[in-house]
Amino acid sequence: MVKAEASQVFGDLRTGRPRAFSRAISWVENGAPQASALLEQVYAQAPHPWVVGITGVGGAGKSSLVPHLARRLAEDGTRIAVLAVDPSSPLTGGALLGDRIRDANGEQHPRVFFRSVATRGGQGGLATCVADLVRVAAAAGHEIVLIETVGAGQSELGILQVAHTVLLVNAPGLGDDVQAQKAGVMEVADVLAVNKADRPGALDTAASLRQALQLSEREAHMRPGANALPDGAVHWHPPVLATVALTGQGVQELCDTLREHRAVLERQGRLAELNRLHDLRRMQSYFMEVVQQRLQARIASLALADRLEAELAGGQGDPLAAARLLADAVLENQATR
Amino acid sequence: MVKAEASQVFGDLRTGRPRAFSRAISWVENGAPQASALLEQVYAQAPHPWVVGITGVGGAGKSSLVPHLARRLAEDGTRIAVLAVDPSSPLTGGALLGDRIRDANGEQHPRVFFRSVATRGGQGGLATCVADLVRVAAAAGHEIVLIETVGAGQSELGILQVAHTVLLVNAPGLGDDVQAQKAGVMEVADVLAVNKADRPGALDTAASLRQALQLSEREAHMRPGANALPDGAVHWHPPVLATVALTGQGVQELCDTLREHRAVLERQGRLAELNRLHDLRRMQSYFMEVVQQRLQARIASLALADRLEAELAGGQGDPLAAARLLADAVLENQATR
Repeated sequence: MVKAEASQVFGDLRTGRPRAFSRAISWVENGAPQASALLEQVYAQAPHPWVVGITGVGGAGKSSLVPHLARRLAEDGTRIAVLAVDPSSPLTGGALLGDRIRDANGEQHPRVFFRSVATRGGQGGLATCVADLVRVAAAAGHEIVLIETVGAGQSELGILQVAHTVLLVNAPGLGDDVQAQKAGVMEVADVLAVNKADRPGALDTAASLRQALQLSEREAHMRPGANALPDGAVHWHPPVLATVALTGQGVQELCDTLREHRAVLERQGRLAELNRLHDLRRMQSYFMEVVQQRLQARIASLALADRLEAELAGGQGDPLAAARLLADAVLENQATR
Repeated sequence: MVKAEASQVFGDLRTGRPRAFSRAISWVENGAPQASALLEQVYAQAPHPWVVGITGVGGAGKSSLVPHLARRLAEDGTRIAVLAVDPSSPLTGGALLGDRIRDANGEQHPRVFFRSVATRGGQGGLATCVADLVRVAAAAGHEIVLIETVGAGQSELGILQVAHTVLLVNAPGLGDDVQAQKAGVMEVADVLAVNKADRPGALDTAASLRQALQLSEREAHMRPGANALPDGAVHWHPPVLATVALTGQGVQELCDTLREHRAVLERQGRLAELNRLHDLRRMQSYFMEVVQQRLQARIASLALADRLEAELAGGQGDPLAAARLLADAVLENQATR
């Protein structure tokens, strides 16, 4: 039943039906029973799209820039999916973000799909969920996926790991304090944009970003394993571009630069390498999902589990010792398939 | 070797050596090999302390208030541990926070231990790590643990679930916008403080908090399962108190109110109930940790795992199908202990 439904949606997805895409996203977001069956088909058949992660502090104008960027990238016929993820407010942020983006977008573009992702992360965590959605978008025929992430810290960095190319959006007048919070992001940024570049202070912002980049490059250079690129490989120095999202100024150049980064990754063999790395990680996390599912079925048939849980509920017993006993019991059993 | 070292540190922890406490915290933070052996002893023997979660937006003066609060709570001879957790900046935030708190504290108090927690969450996630540290603090003789959490969103709410009592710190003039971001926290707050209460606007802030509380209580009342308290049980209405951390004004009343909340929880049987719930959750997560460890050992002995990984690395194969094959193979094997 669940499998048949997943196959149906997968088929509709491949023929480009937007409602199937929306439904598939919801399944993955919510960890619905259909998600696993769908994802097994998606991973078996969907290609790896080019994934651009877009981040930056609030107020930089990301949500105005992203729709411009998406439409420009779609001009050559490419289909684009934009996934807006807010790791810091999983409960309500999603829907709000989506509306905001649609407003900024003004009119719908036939080859650009916008979706705000409202997920609690599910079993594999937020980054895994985003990685799954990227492949779902690819199954639906999108060759480029833009992940707009809002928020800071660990979960954001995890999401950016899903991307091949990371764009950091800044703007003048946001204060050094705010920019400094993004230190971890600075190190993973491949392209930087100073948006609202028609405002005073834009040159200063660009200069301080370049300075921060030089510092972070120097540090990377001193790390063991640096210079590991093969002879003749192109080294990428993250450029700092100026954009004005409201007028579209600089957006074409930004597109070109992002595509250039992709080309460099491809020449370096990094694009394929990153895809393999993502596949390997996903194999490991899915392994644990499957194992957990199977073991839960075994636990349900064990009287020991009930006894241990009852002891804990009664205020007796020791949770870690109980867990170890249960693991002993469950892993000793022969698998019953 | 690892076990002997863990036993040594556990013994030193119980006799109240601060260096053992620091070391134990570092092990748990970093998921060191000694952590599991230590935690098994901690969970088997350490009591549940009273855990107070303290949160609030930046600028509310939490970091000035917390040391005052800790010292006041320690006046009757109780030993207090303060764990400062910043979920949004796991890489550098920890140490900075710690220094900040120590500065605000001015002098050391013999019964108050401050530690900023710099963790990436480890295997069980950030909230699990904090829950483990709470029990480590209890093993070291601390009857009250204050968890100061900085940041917003999901990970913060997860950390606050570890607490029995949640204190939300506000201040006048921070703007409705900022307060609104804390909507999820408002619903779990048991006690609210308007800090910097000598500043203009403090009464307005208190009034708007009371209004928000009434709204959230009305909503909770309408939820199914509300009024589930037994007849005669005391219902707790989160009070809003005024404090001035710099002068200590209102801190005694805040302490009394927090203790009152604890007493109410105890009369309701909620304190024990929450502890059981935490134990049950920890049993489940530790079960998966142990299972993962054991299965990894099995995988290492399987030629299939190497083959599947090589296929993926070569750009062939399907990560989810590979994971399922591997799970089949591993769970069919008889356990080898």
